[in-house]
Amino acid sequence: MPIVTIQQFPRDAEQKRQLAEKVTQSFVEIYGASPESVQIFFQETDRQDWAKGGKLGGNVPSAD
Amino acid sequence: MPIVTIQQFPRDAEQKRQLAEKVTQSFVEIYGASPESVQIFFQETDRQDWAKGGKLGGNVPSAD
Amino acid sequence: MPIVTIQQFPRDAEQKRQLAEKVTQSFVEIYGASPESVQIFFQETDRQDWAKGGKLGGNVPSAD
Amino acid sequence: MPIVTIQQFPRDAEQKRQLAEKVTQSFVEIYGASPESVQIFFQETDRQDWAKGGKLGGNVPSAD
Amino acid sequence: MPIVTIQQFPRDAEQKRQLAEKVTQSFVEIYGASPESVQIFFQETDRQDWAKGGKLGGNVPSAD
Amino acid sequence: MPIVTIQQFPRDAEQKRQLAEKVTQSFVEIYGASPESVQIFFQETDRQDWAKGGKLGGNVPSAD
Repeated sequence: MPIVTIQQFPRDAEQKRQLAEKVTQSFVEIYGASPESVQIFFQETDRQDWAKGGKLGGNVPSAD
Repeated sequence: MPIVTIQQFPRDAEQKRQLAEKVTQSFVEIYGASPESVQIFFQETDRQDWAKGGKLGGNVPSAD
Repeated sequence: MPIVTIQQFPRDAEQKRQLAEKVTQSFVEIYGASPESVQIFFQETDRQDWAKGGKLGGNVPSAD
Repeated sequence: MPIVTIQQFPRDAEQKRQLAEKVTQSFVEIYGASPESVQIFFQETDRQDWAKGGKLGGNVPSAD
Repeated sequence: MPIVTIQQFPRDAEQKRQLAEKVTQSFVEIYGASPESVQIFFQETDRQDWAKGGKLGGNVPSAD
Repeated sequence: MPIVTIQQFPRDAEQKRQLAEKVTQSFVEIYGASPESVQIFFQETDRQDWAKGGKLGGNVPSAD
């Protein structure tokens, strides 16, 4: 604990590496958690398996 | 909000497109939600990663 | 299958009753699933356990 | 019900077959559930989509 | 890893205690996982937050 | 997107407020996401609904 699940569009490994490091630091600083207690799962979703506003694939800027 | 996650066997894009549209409409009509607030995730599971009745791959009619 | 999980703010039972009925019908009509194969879980989240735009409790119209 | 979701590194089908059987038996014996009511989902995560201790890919013995 | 999430109707602590022990043993025996690597979350759902067959509260034998 | 779900023991609102802010910033800086696209859900689990090492309630330092 804590267990963090991130649903997102696919990202490259370097971005995930940086994000995992920063998010884990946040738990250490704010909750006083030990780094080893934090696990993060990236669940990458293809755009055709996601809908927003009733539209499959959505209609969002590529960064979101 | 709301965030809808659907665990299912793989379906073709046209079925998911129709389902996303209808499910989103339900939230708009019944909850008064704005369409843009509804996000849907399809988590497709292969039959060999699912069990029912203790049997991997289950033993269900193909429609379910 | 399918298993549907809905993360939402708390709603009254009548709204959930109507939504469960409509969403299940969508799977029956579009996927040809049997009604009994569809299970829906409502995971209600209090506003103080949710954040958007970095703000706990968010800043959204009450319908969303 | 119950619906069991297992987040794990990839395993071969024979291990998942045995695990699904044993876990289902546990619900039957301890809860008195019918076997058919138990559904299990294996969500397999590649090592590069998981972090522990702030490190993508973690640093764990291969069995864990 | 593995992380196990169990969606179920509320159960008493003794049943959950026994189930957690048995399920963890299954991972140790079949996967060769260390017991400490197994985490289990019980997500208890009230009957009015669950639907089957399109009916809120479902229509199932009490054991299921 | 991204949608972040955090399974944790109960925390006070001030800690969650700070964490939501920091985690959202990480997505903005590293992914280039807009803040409004980031939603975070805190799923708080009581100690008696969680097991580690096969023991309900676990046996962990209070910070973890």
